[in-house]
Amino acid sequence: MTAYETLERLFARLSALGDAQGVLSWDRDVMMPDGAAERRGATMATLEGLRHELLTAPETQELLERADPGDDPWRAANLAEMRRLHTRAVAVPGDLVEALSKASSRCEMIWRGARANSDFAALLPDLQVVLDLTREGAVATGEALSLSPYDALLDAFDPGMRRDVIAPIFDKLGRELPSLLQAVLDRQSARSNAEAGPGRAPFPVAAQEAFGRTMMEAVGFDMTRGRLDVSTHPFCGGATDDVRITTRYDEANFLPAFLGVVHETGHALYEQGLPRAWTGQPVGTARGMTMHESQSLFLEMQIARSPAFASFAAPAMERAFGGEGWSSDALYRRMTNVEPGFIRVDADEVTYPAHIIARYELESAMVDGTLALRDLPEAFNARIKALLGLTVPDDRRGCLQDIHWPLGLWGYFPCYALGALTAAQLKEAATAALPDLDSSIRRGEFGDVVGWLRKAVHERASSASTMEIIADATGRPLGAGAYLRHIRERYLAD
Amino acid sequence: MTAYETLERLFARLSALGDAQGVLSWDRDVMMPDGAAERRGATMATLEGLRHELLTAPETQELLERADPGDDPWRAANLAEMRRLHTRAVAVPGDLVEALSKASSRCEMIWRGARANSDFAALLPDLQVVLDLTREGAVATGEALSLSPYDALLDAFDPGMRRDVIAPIFDKLGRELPSLLQAVLDRQSARSNAEAGPGRAPFPVAAQEAFGRTMMEAVGFDMTRGRLDVSTHPFCGGATDDVRITTRYDEANFLPAFLGVVHETGHALYEQGLPRAWTGQPVGTARGMTMHESQSLFLEMQIARSPAFASFAAPAMERAFGGEGWSSDALYRRMTNVEPGFIRVDADEVTYPAHIIARYELESAMVDGTLALRDLPEAFNARIKALLGLTVPDDRRGCLQDIHWPLGLWGYFPCYALGALTAAQLKEAATAALPDLDSSIRRGEFGDVVGWLRKAVHERASSASTMEIIADATGRPLGAGAYLRHIRERYLAD
Repeated sequence: MTAYETLERLFARLSALGDAQGVLSWDRDVMMPDGAAERRGATMATLEGLRHELLTAPETQELLERADPGDDPWRAANLAEMRRLHTRAVAVPGDLVEALSKASSRCEMIWRGARANSDFAALLPDLQVVLDLTREGAVATGEALSLSPYDALLDAFDPGMRRDVIAPIFDKLGRELPSLLQAVLDRQSARSNAEAGPGRAPFPVAAQEAFGRTMMEAVGFDMTRGRLDVSTHPFCGGATDDVRITTRYDEANFLPAFLGVVHETGHALYEQGLPRAWTGQPVGTARGMTMHESQSLFLEMQIARSPAFASFAAPAMERAFGGEGWSSDALYRRMTNVEPGFIRVDADEVTYPAHIIARYELESAMVDGTLALRDLPEAFNARIKALLGLTVPDDRRGCLQDIHWPLGLWGYFPCYALGALTAAQLKEAATAALPDLDSSIRRGEFGDVVGWLRKAVHERASSASTMEIIADATGRPLGAGAYLRHIRERYLAD
Repeated sequence: MTAYETLERLFARLSALGDAQGVLSWDRDVMMPDGAAERRGATMATLEGLRHELLTAPETQELLERADPGDDPWRAANLAEMRRLHTRAVAVPGDLVEALSKASSRCEMIWRGARANSDFAALLPDLQVVLDLTREGAVATGEALSLSPYDALLDAFDPGMRRDVIAPIFDKLGRELPSLLQAVLDRQSARSNAEAGPGRAPFPVAAQEAFGRTMMEAVGFDMTRGRLDVSTHPFCGGATDDVRITTRYDEANFLPAFLGVVHETGHALYEQGLPRAWTGQPVGTARGMTMHESQSLFLEMQIARSPAFASFAAPAMERAFGGEGWSSDALYRRMTNVEPGFIRVDADEVTYPAHIIARYELESAMVDGTLALRDLPEAFNARIKALLGLTVPDDRRGCLQDIHWPLGLWGYFPCYALGALTAAQLKEAATAALPDLDSSIRRGEFGDVVGWLRKAVHERASSASTMEIIADATGRPLGAGAYLRHIRERYLAD
């Protein structure tokens, strides 16, 4: 076996371990009895430790140095991904990884109480430890990859993503969004108020679930290689050939579960559409969190919340739920209602980027050391005021609302907004490539558009950078233009 | 860290890997979509391979040689278990393990078709390969452990179990059971036929499941550290602090699911009752398959199918299912009906051992080489005729009915019957220790008897051999006496 082939074997084992972790993690959130939590933590730490040991073994380094992928560009990209993963893994000393893991576990626990009590001071000492350790890791990784600490953090979730890409895009959004939002709100208030419908509560869980499955299958989710279940926080997880999405049901309102299923199905189609020839290899995995979020938001924001989709879905919903008022117009208005609020995860697509821009600015300043953690609440509230016009009443609805920072996920937030921009840009390109797109959606036919996504995004996997895939698919670099056009057209055009 | 402490750490990791395999295996049988089967196989093979590599690493051998457990008998027993596991793991060459794994996967597939068509000739070539490889592995393991090949196979499932323990017990049973069975059948036919009840079908799945849970909790199953689900073949699996049992429901007949739940709960109580101080260490695991089966059969055969339990359960069933005829007598008669049949897994407790004795005699002769595989059908049918008085009509209902041999599980069958004997012997001892046992069961109070099992069996884990645990708990070596007394008393005494 050549060095390259030996590496492919090693990474296939790492991928199998990753699949085991994926199923165990799904199980923890969906199936596991409470009393197993501690032991499950130990089991998952063991798998993570074994993965790290295999990746950082001395012979891996030696193989990576002398491996020759030959002329095939996918093999070359695969080897480059292997080297990137290895460099990241060896950059941070094991005791720092362990310290961060322990500190973030502890901090998450403290955070749950602090958020409930809206008590930032109670979280501050532990969050400071997490920030310090995160920064220490980012400095070490940054040195190994020749990146600034914040870029090293971004790069963990979104390989190749850099602050000098994000900053001008977010600056532009930050300048344009406040007045755009005001215009959308003015237009919305000028329209007649949306009635209470469509449909009439209660919407039984069984009917919601059956309808969700119908929608999943309609857009191409392969049920023989995946599942739909229930969890407190919806997610897409599982393993290769076993992509599992979750949602949660509210019998008073069918829309959150429905749109949640659509959103997670977007993630799932990406996973199910990855090239089978590269299963188990780094180059065969999803490109990063921006690309992933673009796929869920493409399906949710660009497809499902459109007038065309509403005219397909309203009659299907009427059959599924009965009751009255199932006009596509009422459904569309419900799905595109804009309302500035404090909570990021409840935000609509117009106000969502503001939540992200604030977090991006604040977290990068804290990693840089130009903003002290103790000053976060004040700075957070100031940015929400400026971007959304809202006065944050307490830290529970302010800087304490998200789990990311306590968990050590600094540098993660940007991908949510970048995913929204990417989705809008992909939608423009798909519309140009598929002139019949709108009428296909009206007929409930998604084969062409999902096929387009497969070719443009899914099948490219990690063979190129996020930026390259976007540029190849849309003919231009990632920017805010398509998103802003989309918002204007959807909310201000008629 | 001392060598012994380093080994404890290593075995804790192996245990965590085993827990991961336990959850993944449960998931495969209960949750996994069909399309994930191939990939899941690869994932589980990777975990098994890693476990084997860690266990057989050169430094493990060296640590085992110089480890000193000190004076604590549990640490000494733990080290002895570590050595046994290591010796077994290194005894069989990796390519033989792999060859057997592939051959048995293939043979299992062929078996499914051969059983359906009752076509032994179609299975013969593949089963011969599995037998040859199994024997080759048994010879290698036997040499390492100074055991005969068949004892080496027994020892894999039931450490310490030997043919010279089993043979006299099974010989005695084989001599006594045919006439005992005839007496039971005569007595049964002299009684009035049992009516169709108790209760009236359909028994809704939801009601059966709720009733099953009530019974699990009544006998002490800790629902915060386990689950009840549905699978094609009921089993007890899962992981540490996460013991998962399954059953399957038939709305026409509530008894199989109910007694299945009780049976698997017996396994589960054993797992949940293992000593927490030794979690993750070899000495802290269940002793072997005979002991495990004794715990499920104790609960199912000794407790649940008793008149005392029937008088507790009948009113509870009436509340759960409604309908008529819920007399404890009718329930007891249903639960103790004896009927010789061809299928082992459907057999009652009187005829069950005959199925095992036949398989034990035949498999040991095949491993010894004194019975050729091609002569198995004839030999099988002759033994069933002699032991049960039945003429096997086709191999589907004869030697093709079980998955064990195609899967390479030679030496496994005896534990089923040994478990039944052990359960009867434990029940005699528990009755002597707990004079109120019968009336506690009538009141639905199981704390004392489960507490007795915990002390006598569960908490001893693998700190002693199966034979030692039985002798300590019952005051005498394992034998057929208690079982035969139990059968005579239950079926012939009134």
